[in-house]
Amino acid sequence: MQITDMTEPKFHWTKQAQHHNARAGTLHTAHGDVQTPTFMPVGTVGTVKAMTMDAVRSTGAGIVLGNTYHLMLRPGAELVHELGGLHKFMDWSGPILTDSGGFQVMSLGDLRKLDEDGVTFRSHIDGSAHRLTPESSTDIQYLLDATITMCFDECPALPATYETIAKSMRLSMRWAERSRKQFKNRPGYAQFGIVQGGIEPDLRAESVEALTNIGFEGYAIGGLAVGEPQEQMFSTLDFTTHLMPIDKPRYLMGVGTPDDMLGAIERGVDMFDCVMPTRAGRTGRAYTSHGTLNMKNACHIHDPNPIDPECDCLACSKHSRAYIHHLFRSKEILGAMLLTWHNIAYYQRLMRIIRQAIIEDNLTQTAATLRSNWTHHNQPKL
Amino acid sequence: MQITDMTEPKFHWTKQAQHHNARAGTLHTAHGDVQTPTFMPVGTVGTVKAMTMDAVRSTGAGIVLGNTYHLMLRPGAELVHELGGLHKFMDWSGPILTDSGGFQVMSLGDLRKLDEDGVTFRSHIDGSAHRLTPESSTDIQYLLDATITMCFDECPALPATYETIAKSMRLSMRWAERSRKQFKNRPGYAQFGIVQGGIEPDLRAESVEALTNIGFEGYAIGGLAVGEPQEQMFSTLDFTTHLMPIDKPRYLMGVGTPDDMLGAIERGVDMFDCVMPTRAGRTGRAYTSHGTLNMKNACHIHDPNPIDPECDCLACSKHSRAYIHHLFRSKEILGAMLLTWHNIAYYQRLMRIIRQAIIEDNLTQTAATLRSNWTHHNQPKL
Repeated sequence: MQITDMTEPKFHWTKQAQHHNARAGTLHTAHGDVQTPTFMPVGTVGTVKAMTMDAVRSTGAGIVLGNTYHLMLRPGAELVHELGGLHKFMDWSGPILTDSGGFQVMSLGDLRKLDEDGVTFRSHIDGSAHRLTPESSTDIQYLLDATITMCFDECPALPATYETIAKSMRLSMRWAERSRKQFKNRPGYAQFGIVQGGIEPDLRAESVEALTNIGFEGYAIGGLAVGEPQEQMFSTLDFTTHLMPIDKPRYLMGVGTPDDMLGAIERGVDMFDCVMPTRAGRTGRAYTSHGTLNMKNACHIHDPNPIDPECDCLACSKHSRAYIHHLFRSKEILGAMLLTWHNIAYYQRLMRIIRQAIIEDNLTQTAATLRSNWTHHNQPKL
Repeated sequence: MQITDMTEPKFHWTKQAQHHNARAGTLHTAHGDVQTPTFMPVGTVGTVKAMTMDAVRSTGAGIVLGNTYHLMLRPGAELVHELGGLHKFMDWSGPILTDSGGFQVMSLGDLRKLDEDGVTFRSHIDGSAHRLTPESSTDIQYLLDATITMCFDECPALPATYETIAKSMRLSMRWAERSRKQFKNRPGYAQFGIVQGGIEPDLRAESVEALTNIGFEGYAIGGLAVGEPQEQMFSTLDFTTHLMPIDKPRYLMGVGTPDDMLGAIERGVDMFDCVMPTRAGRTGRAYTSHGTLNMKNACHIHDPNPIDPECDCLACSKHSRAYIHHLFRSKEILGAMLLTWHNIAYYQRLMRIIRQAIIEDNLTQTAATLRSNWTHHNQPKL
């Protein structure tokens, strides 16, 4: 793909390599380039919890996520706009993707009332009444100055009946059209459509067709990671990703564990977001090359080794497992700070390892090694 | 003062300048030099709360404090020793001063039982029984590898009767002698005696004489900042510091506000520690060139200005008051991280400003300007 006008570069994705269905590429945006596959740390209310943005940058993260639902309630999209946008507010000059608020209205808002036009709900913070529609969600994301705006959609929890999923998907497709109409495109900015349809092949196909007829700069896969087993998620990806445009980025929303992401990349996904590494960092769970560790466990009391000897984050380059364990045992904030940093660093390193393997046409072997190491919860030998 | 043996440099303090009673100098230690006056951030259990040690270093802090009472209970001095000492454990290669545990046993421990030999108490964490004596406190500080070890002492709360203060001070002097006997001195390491005697001139004089007869590398002033008014603290310093050796560092324990420290420096004090800037950073109070600010106040909601325009810390160079306010309102950990960083940065900058004024023989004017600015709680003009 060529940039047609260098003075106003369009948002686009270029592919560097492919190994079976797995893709290595680069997102080109108004706020810089991002190598894919990529994991986007979640910065819900304008902060990746327990990290400075300098720390986030140091892990190699190229793009972060903000939550429209949270930001519209506090501090408010108008305030963020008045202060120069979310990039300046949170000190992140790279690209930012904002979700549409649709998913979180359904999972966090109180007294939700859904109609054809949109959703009315009460804030989980103060009970105040709010309304989101495809138009207002798109406008809020514009005020936040999101590099990538998501379509406003509705997403039923699984398991659900075929009829429920079909009805919801078709509503989301009508909303996608309204979201697109409301979207003010600017050079290097993008809007992604969200493929819905649960685990039903025909509904996913119908959704992809509806979205590609509208036309977006990228396509997300929604409605997964909502409680279904991993095999169901993978089988849904198997029949969904190959229907999606090959020249546009594909984003699997809300996923996941290292193993989930590896399997999804093998099935053609390019982008991920998930609260797991940050949330785990605050509760003492470490993601490592050798599986997960509970840093609160007494086995770490005397351990002079780093969390992950293959990691170069601050926690691993400067501190022992014994120290991290001590911080969690003492309920010190620094425990959450260091372990969140480590987990995000691990997620970013994993993306780099996988990307390199795709480029070297070696992903099959690399994936086998990664999976084998994850099942070895042993102390690493130093 | 000359270093007598360059291969094994002694701990010593050199004076660069004096303005009336205020001194600018340098501490020379096994773990590097520290310019005085100096403020020591408190790293109670091996972490300056909510800060990485890289952040602490970036503020210009030269020496930090650890708490014997906390560290002996968790993770334990033997464990810290086994892992290479407190410097390595917490990633601080500079000097560390540890208190003796005496003060905190009295303020935090349960079921304290004091006798001539020492103190028996129960841990505030798990109720387990422990004993501290001058010998065991000194040994624990040795295991922690403290650059500066403090004598084990007893400190009654004020107000107290003359008899109570006299009896307590004389016990502390006998304990100081035992602490000194137990101390294993090494090149560049030090032990400080602690002057007690409440607000009684004759008791303070008796205490100074007892300690200087024993002989220490430095002298602390204990028993202040325990609830007395500032004038009483200053008047006690007025008749205490001029009794103390002029060629040794003087450390006022547990002090204080910027105004407390300025007044104490004017009275000949060189070193301080206090939890205020770190604790305030977690509760939303900012120390600035223009007095304190409560970052939770609604007046900051729209404010695009930094906390302190004269500050170059991460919080002030990258973020608005509106953002810091938003983080506290949203109970985000990053709020505590950024504001603690700022407060420690302010304390360190204040020490540099005062030191420079002493060197330039200009402290009287600088102190007047600082005090005048602190009473202006206005928004700074940008």
